[in-house]
Amino acid sequence: MRQRVKLESMKRVVVAADLGGTNLRAALVNEQGEVFARRERPTPEGAEAVVEAVGDLLSQVARASASPPLAAGVGSPGLVDADAGIVALSPNIPGFRNLQLAAPVSERVGLPTYIENDASAAALGEYRFGAGRGTRHLLHATLGTGIGGGIVIDGRLYRGARGFAGEIGHVVLDPAGPRCSCGSRGCLEALVSGWAFAARARRLIQSGNSPVLLEIVGYREPTAADLHAAALAGDRQCEAEIRNGGHLLGIGLGGLVNVLNPDIVTLSGGLLNMGEMLLKPMREALFSIAYGPASGTQLATTTLDDDAGLLGAAAVAFERAALVAGPLKG
Amino acid sequence: MRQRVKLESMKRVVVAADLGGTNLRAALVNEQGEVFARRERPTPEGAEAVVEAVGDLLSQVARASASPPLAAGVGSPGLVDADAGIVALSPNIPGFRNLQLAAPVSERVGLPTYIENDASAAALGEYRFGAGRGTRHLLHATLGTGIGGGIVIDGRLYRGARGFAGEIGHVVLDPAGPRCSCGSRGCLEALVSGWAFAARARRLIQSGNSPVLLEIVGYREPTAADLHAAALAGDRQCEAEIRNGGHLLGIGLGGLVNVLNPDIVTLSGGLLNMGEMLLKPMREALFSIAYGPASGTQLATTTLDDDAGLLGAAAVAFERAALVAGPLKG
Repeated sequence: MRQRVKLESMKRVVVAADLGGTNLRAALVNEQGEVFARRERPTPEGAEAVVEAVGDLLSQVARASASPPLAAGVGSPGLVDADAGIVALSPNIPGFRNLQLAAPVSERVGLPTYIENDASAAALGEYRFGAGRGTRHLLHATLGTGIGGGIVIDGRLYRGARGFAGEIGHVVLDPAGPRCSCGSRGCLEALVSGWAFAARARRLIQSGNSPVLLEIVGYREPTAADLHAAALAGDRQCEAEIRNGGHLLGIGLGGLVNVLNPDIVTLSGGLLNMGEMLLKPMREALFSIAYGPASGTQLATTTLDDDAGLLGAAAVAFERAALVAGPLKG
Repeated sequence: MRQRVKLESMKRVVVAADLGGTNLRAALVNEQGEVFARRERPTPEGAEAVVEAVGDLLSQVARASASPPLAAGVGSPGLVDADAGIVALSPNIPGFRNLQLAAPVSERVGLPTYIENDASAAALGEYRFGAGRGTRHLLHATLGTGIGGGIVIDGRLYRGARGFAGEIGHVVLDPAGPRCSCGSRGCLEALVSGWAFAARARRLIQSGNSPVLLEIVGYREPTAADLHAAALAGDRQCEAEIRNGGHLLGIGLGGLVNVLNPDIVTLSGGLLNMGEMLLKPMREALFSIAYGPASGTQLATTTLDDDAGLLGAAAVAFERAALVAGPLKG
C-alpha cells in the first residue's frame, strides 16, 4: 500500500541514506515522512567503496522520484563534522577517519548533500516524524551495539561547537568501572550497551554459573540477545544483569534530564527488544533521579521502527534544505 | 573610578539583584557590563520579607539612574520557573516553595521584572560580559556550597521544558556513592562541592588522622575552606581529598562536554579559591574524558569575580528586554 505514491505528496521529497556498519539503505522520503523506493545492500569495505555505494544508491532512489528531490541526507556512525561534510572518526567502519563524505556523494548524486551523525539524525527524525512530534526540546538515545544520542533544541538539531554534541554514551557513571571503547572508564556505554551486555554474557559463561546461557551460546561469541534469551528461559543471573543495566541506563539518562530538562526523552535501537526487563528499572531510576517538583519530561520509545535511520537522514536533509531555501510548509 | 558615570554609557541600563542565602545585592548595570550604584544587605528571613527587600533595594538602585532602566533582573537560588516568574523550590531559603517573585517585585519597582536561577543567570553573564564573550555555546558551572550550572546555546540562555535546565550538580557519578541533598546517591554535588568537602573534613577529623585540620577547626563545624587551609599547611589527606574532588569534577564536566560539545566551559564560585590543587586534576580528567579528536572546547574561570551574580541577573534582564523590544545594540 505504501508504494502507491500520491502525486501531491511527492512534491517536496528528499533522498536519504542510512549508512550502517553492516547494511546501507536508501529511500525517497516526503515531508509527511512517507518512505518510497527503498534500496538496500551490504556496506562494502573501504572508504572509497562506501562513498561510491552511497552515491550510487542515492542516485537510483532519486531517479524514482517524479520531481527532483530537494537534497540528500546521509546518517553515518561516528563523529561527524556536519558543517564540513566530514566523518572525523567512525570506529565501526574501518578507514573512516577525516573522510570527506558529503562532497563526493553530492557530486555523484547531483544534489546538495548533508551528512550527520546517525544518532543525531535519529533525534531529528523522532522530532519531525516520530515520537517527538509537537515537542520543543528532545533528547534521543539510540540503544544499540553502542549508545548514541542526539539533542533537538527549539525544534532544531543541536550540533555543538564542532558537530560532536549528543555523545551521551560517554558520560561517566562509574569512574572505577570497566574500560570503554573510548579509552575512559565506566562510561554509560561501557556499562549498558550491546557490546557491554555481550561482555557480561561472556563473563557469566566463563564463571560456569549460567548453564542456560552456555546452552544457548555454545561455542560462538555471546551477544546481548543471547543474554536476553537466557533470561527469558529462566536464568536469574542473566535477568539480573539486564535489570541492573536498565537501572544504570535510567540513572545516566536521569542525570541528563537534570541537565537538559527536555520535553521528551525518546529511545530507539536493538536493546529495546529486551522490553520491560530493561525498560521498567530504567524508568524507575530515571524518574527517581530526575530533579525538580515537576520536570515535566516524558519518556517514549520510537514510533519509526526500522525506518528510524532513513527518516532521521531525511529530516536532516529537510532541515538543511529549509535553511537554504526558507521555511518549508509541513 | 567606576562611580564616574559616563552619560552615554547610561542610556541603556537595567537594575539587577543577586539574591543569595546570606546576602542580597543590587546594582545598576549598563550594556557594557559596568556596575553602578551598588547596594547590599543581609537576606531577611521569610518569603514575604525577601520579596519586600528585593523590591526596595531595586527601587533604590533604579532611582540612581539618569534614564529609566529597561527592566529588572533577579537571580535566585533553586528551581526557577522563569516564564511563570516563580521560584518553585529553593532549599537554601526557607519558605521559598512555589513563590511568586517576579510579579510582586515588578509591582514594587515599576519595571518589567525577570527572574532566573542564579547559575543560569551566571552562564548568561559570562557569555555576555565575561569569559565567554565571542562564543556561541557555553556551559557554566558554579562551584560553591552546591554545584549549579547554566547553558547558553546559540547565544541565548537555554532553559529547557520547565526552566529547570542546567542542574549539572545532579548528574550521577557514582550510583553507590554518598547521599545527595536531592535524595539520590553519588550526584556530582554529593562528591565535590562546598558541603561535600565540609562533610569529608568532618569525617577526617572524626577519624583522628588529620591533626592539622583539627587544630584549624577546633570545636566548630569544619568548612571546605578549612580543608583547603589544612592542605596548604601540609596535611596530605586533606590535599588528597581536594585533588580527588578535582578529578571527579573533571570526569563529570568531561561527560557533559561529550553531551553538549560547547565552545567553552566557564567556572565560577568559592571553590575556585582552592586554585590549582583543585583545578589541575580537574583539567586533566576533563580533557582525558572529553571525546573526539578535537572537541575544540575551551576551559576558563570567570572574569567577573564578585560581580558574576549581579552581571548574570543584568544579562537576563537585557536578554528578556531585547526579546520584547527588539535587538539591542551591543
